[in-house]
Amino acid sequence: MEKPYVFGLDMGGTNSVLGIVDARGHVLARTSIRTQQYPKINDYIDALYAEAEKIAEPLGGFEMFRGFGAGVPNGNYYTGVIQGAMNLPWGPYVPFAELITKKFGLPCKITNDANAAAMGEMTYGAAKGMKDFIMITLGTGVGSGIVIDGKVVYGHDGFAGELGHTMVAYGDDARPCNCGKKGCLEAYCSATGVARTAKEIVTKSKKKTVLRNLDVDNITSKDVFDAAEAGDEVAKEIFDFTGTILGRKLSDFVEFSAPEAIILFGGLTKSGHWILDPVVKALNENVLPIWRDKVKVMFSDLKEADAAVLGGSALAWE
Amino acid sequence: MEKPYVFGLDMGGTNSVLGIVDARGHVLARTSIRTQQYPKINDYIDALYAEAEKIAEPLGGFEMFRGFGAGVPNGNYYTGVIQGAMNLPWGPYVPFAELITKKFGLPCKITNDANAAAMGEMTYGAAKGMKDFIMITLGTGVGSGIVIDGKVVYGHDGFAGELGHTMVAYGDDARPCNCGKKGCLEAYCSATGVARTAKEIVTKSKKKTVLRNLDVDNITSKDVFDAAEAGDEVAKEIFDFTGTILGRKLSDFVEFSAPEAIILFGGLTKSGHWILDPVVKALNENVLPIWRDKVKVMFSDLKEADAAVLGGSALAWE
Repeated sequence: MEKPYVFGLDMGGTNSVLGIVDARGHVLARTSIRTQQYPKINDYIDALYAEAEKIAEPLGGFEMFRGFGAGVPNGNYYTGVIQGAMNLPWGPYVPFAELITKKFGLPCKITNDANAAAMGEMTYGAAKGMKDFIMITLGTGVGSGIVIDGKVVYGHDGFAGELGHTMVAYGDDARPCNCGKKGCLEAYCSATGVARTAKEIVTKSKKKTVLRNLDVDNITSKDVFDAAEAGDEVAKEIFDFTGTILGRKLSDFVEFSAPEAIILFGGLTKSGHWILDPVVKALNENVLPIWRDKVKVMFSDLKEADAAVLGGSALAWE
Repeated sequence: MEKPYVFGLDMGGTNSVLGIVDARGHVLARTSIRTQQYPKINDYIDALYAEAEKIAEPLGGFEMFRGFGAGVPNGNYYTGVIQGAMNLPWGPYVPFAELITKKFGLPCKITNDANAAAMGEMTYGAAKGMKDFIMITLGTGVGSGIVIDGKVVYGHDGFAGELGHTMVAYGDDARPCNCGKKGCLEAYCSATGVARTAKEIVTKSKKKTVLRNLDVDNITSKDVFDAAEAGDEVAKEIFDFTGTILGRKLSDFVEFSAPEAIILFGGLTKSGHWILDPVVKALNENVLPIWRDKVKVMFSDLKEADAAVLGGSALAWE
């Protein structure tokens, strides 16, 4: 009998969520541990193993499992190593896949969060059956996972797909990005970028907007969405500004790899058509005629609560 | 015995050059026909066949050949069809690979010129042994061939790798490109783009430059090179302007696919360090720290006269 289950791990800086997933993408059980609670990686692995046993037992135990897949910050797919992850407590070099395999007796694959999201989308979600697509995650940052010919692109060193750090502005006026550069896509088109745009417009213009009633340092993309829904023109302008920058950049990506679809995921997609419409418009205005109105731009259809675990788990079927 | 030779065809709008190539990338014989002389594709194929027989005969005839590869305008690798090529006389749909196979009795693969150049570079040239690199051709236009994990990227529809039409400027002030868009990389960083920049500076500024002595509508990138070599400051400024735009864009491409190297080819590379230095500088200023000073930027080492034939021929070894 084919073993019916895999483990999928979503390791975040705060929580690590472990799920049991079947081939159709159902999360049959889940558990979690606090990532930072274990200053030594071996203690983390032991704690994870103890949790895994608990949830696997009712389903027949570890012999029912085909493998273990994980989306982890700075996870290198080629080497299985977590390398230089600033938000994790275990130092610059953690041979994570090897440690999991030793403890669990299961093959283990890891990759970074955005690549895992792309794998999840291809295995269970909106990109099922697609061989060429680009996943863009629009959350605190902008991440990306690129799939070409059915495979995630890792590049020469395993770190390909940093589309959030492609450039949309240059020079002193460009916005600083968390990566140390100025002018990255992420600085404009993440949920955080939308909040920065809102703050800029509220403080630098005299335009009438309900956003002015909020604490300018704590405006969120959700606030901008609510304002747009209520008919606020400045809120719409913020989404147009953001979507135009993102759509222009997507046209570059289409000219690179000619994907069938671009799939958007993450907090900002909750803004729905407010963000999608200007993205699609700018993409089609800037892409070569052969791709105009041909590349699908769509939202992920994975449940947000499951998506990261599903992404990790998708690696385990390979 | 392994068959030792392949045919490589470089089909241009004017000439079609056919060469016989061995596995080490030596062009053992070559011939050519005028592309436009044959209003019917079958007459073109017959003429090519007659020429091929002549050069193949001294080498043992067609039984010594493993296959036929061709770089052709708008050649679709997946289908073997030349589709919508404006500069060829045979209409919108030419099943070229099929016709060659029927006539020559050899397997035939085609692709467009820039992808063929990338294949040539990987099979015989500067990218030998590399699995991840990007080829940029800087001639009348800007073309590109992207190799990921040892394979040329074709994308969902076969047309991936149009990096010459990624955007470097937006809006009314952006330069019109031949593709109908405004602001494409090609409009700035092709040999023609350099000439346009020269014309702009000469006509719009009062700066002292030897370029002012030339007919402003006929300044070439070679003229700008000669001026730079002679110490002309405006000529250097033109290369800095061009190289900065190109290098910035290369940083986006590195963040997409994390290549080991970027290989530059075509007329503009004759400008040597004048163009290379600002490209490398702008790339490293704009790329994420993990790739800073790590991605090789190099010129093709294939002889220009052979490169296109070698590129076509490389497909035939697959």
